[in-house]
Amino acid sequence: MEQWLLSLRTDTPQEGFELAIQLSQRGVVYTQPSEEIRNRLRPLYSKNADSLIAASQIIAINFQTVAAANDYWKNTTT
Amino acid sequence: MEQWLLSLRTDTPQEGFELAIQLSQRGVVYTQPSEEIRNRLRPLYSKNADSLIAASQIIAINFQTVAAANDYWKNTTT
Amino acid sequence: MEQWLLSLRTDTPQEGFELAIQLSQRGVVYTQPSEEIRNRLRPLYSKNADSLIAASQIIAINFQTVAAANDYWKNTTT
Amino acid sequence: MEQWLLSLRTDTPQEGFELAIQLSQRGVVYTQPSEEIRNRLRPLYSKNADSLIAASQIIAINFQTVAAANDYWKNTTT
Amino acid sequence: MEQWLLSLRTDTPQEGFELAIQLSQRGVVYTQPSEEIRNRLRPLYSKNADSLIAASQIIAINFQTVAAANDYWKNTTT
Amino acid sequence: MEQWLLSLRTDTPQEGFELAIQLSQRGVVYTQPSEEIRNRLRPLYSKNADSLIAASQIIAINFQTVAAANDYWKNTTT
Repeated sequence: MEQWLLSLRTDTPQEGFELAIQLSQRGVVYTQPSEEIRNRLRPLYSKNADSLIAASQIIAINFQTVAAANDYWKNTTT
Repeated sequence: MEQWLLSLRTDTPQEGFELAIQLSQRGVVYTQPSEEIRNRLRPLYSKNADSLIAASQIIAINFQTVAAANDYWKNTTT
Repeated sequence: MEQWLLSLRTDTPQEGFELAIQLSQRGVVYTQPSEEIRNRLRPLYSKNADSLIAASQIIAINFQTVAAANDYWKNTTT
Repeated sequence: MEQWLLSLRTDTPQEGFELAIQLSQRGVVYTQPSEEIRNRLRPLYSKNADSLIAASQIIAINFQTVAAANDYWKNTTT
Repeated sequence: MEQWLLSLRTDTPQEGFELAIQLSQRGVVYTQPSEEIRNRLRPLYSKNADSLIAASQIIAINFQTVAAANDYWKNTTT
Repeated sequence: MEQWLLSLRTDTPQEGFELAIQLSQRGVVYTQPSEEIRNRLRPLYSKNADSLIAASQIIAINFQTVAAANDYWKNTTT
C-alpha cells in the first residue's frame, strides 16, 4: 500500500480532526480493499442514522489518539 | 470546509461538554455532508432510545479528549 | 441552557460515579431536548437489557474522565 | 443511595477486576433501580451471547479505570 | 472464586495480548458462571462475524490496560 | 501458538496502524481458531457496512495502544 500516514502532527485541532476521519476511513479500506464494493455500501450507511453515529464514534476514538499526539495543541496560539 | 475548531480549551467543564457535543455532530457532518439528508434522519434517531444512548456515548468519548486538553479544569476556580 | 456542570471534582469516588451518571444523562438531554419525548422512551429502554448495558457503558466511559479529574481520589482518606 | 464505593484501591489486580464488575453492575442499578425488573431481565441477557460480550466490554472499560487508580499494581509483590 | 489474576506484568507483548484475552473471557465467566450455558453459547457466537468482531474489541480494550501496566514493554530487548 | 508479536515499536505511524490491524485480526483468530470458518465469514462481513465500521473501531482502539507505545512517533523525523 502506498504511503499515506507520515506523521500524527497537525497544525490545528481541526486538521487533527480531519486526520482522525482519514484514519477511520483507512480502517475500512484495509478491511475491504475493493473500492467498488465500498462505493456500493456508502449510499446505504451514509443514509442510516445508526451507521452515521457509529462512524462518528470511530472518529472520536481516533481523535483521542491524534489529540494526544499533538499534546492537545496546547502550545498553539490561536 | 470552513474553520470551526480553533482550540480545545474552554473556560469551564460545561463549555467543554458542549464542545464535545459539537465534535460528535461534526463527525456525522463529515460522513454525511448533505444537510437535507441529516435533517431527514434526525427525527428518527432522536426518538429512538438506542440511538440516543449511542449519541451520548460519542459525546462521552469526545469529552474525555476535551477534558484532558483542559487538564480537567483543575486550575479553574469555581 | 442553565449552568449544570461547574467542576469535575468530587469528594468521594461514589460521588464521582454519580457525576458520571449525570454526564451520561446530559448527553441524551442535549441530543433530545424534549423532556416529554425522553419520558416516553424511558420505560422502554429501562426494561430492555441491552439498553441498560449500553447505558452502563456510557457511565463507565464518563467515570474514566471523572476519576482522572480527581486523580483517582488517591489522596482521599477513607 | 447507601454508601457502596469508598475507594478505587484494591490489594490485588483480581480484586480490582471484581471491583470493575461491581461498577458495571452499579451502572445498571442506577439506570433501572427496580430489583424486580432487573431480576426479570437477568435470565434473558445472561443466556444471550451478545449481551454477555457487551457486559464483558463494560467490565473492561471499568477495569481500565481501576487499574490506573492502582498504578497497575506495579508495586505489589506477588 | 479461585485466584486467577496475580499480576498484569508479562514478559512479552504477545503474552500481554494473551492475558488480555483471558481478562475478556473472565468478564463473561463472572456474568454467566455456568460453564454449561457458556459452552452452549460458544458455537453460536464463534461462528457469527459480528460477535467475533465484538470479542476482538474487548480484547483490544483489555490490551490497552495490560500494555500500560507493562509500560508498553519499552524496556524489553527483542 | 507461534510467536507473532515481539514488539509494539514501529518506525512510522503507518506501520503502527498496520500493526493495529494485525492486533485486531489476532483477536478474532484467538476467538475463532478455525481458518476455514473465518474464511467462510469474511465475504459476509466485508460486504456489510456495519461490520466494516465495527472492524475500523477495533483498529482505532488498538492504534491508541500502538501509538502510545511509540510515544506517538514524536521523535521521528519525516
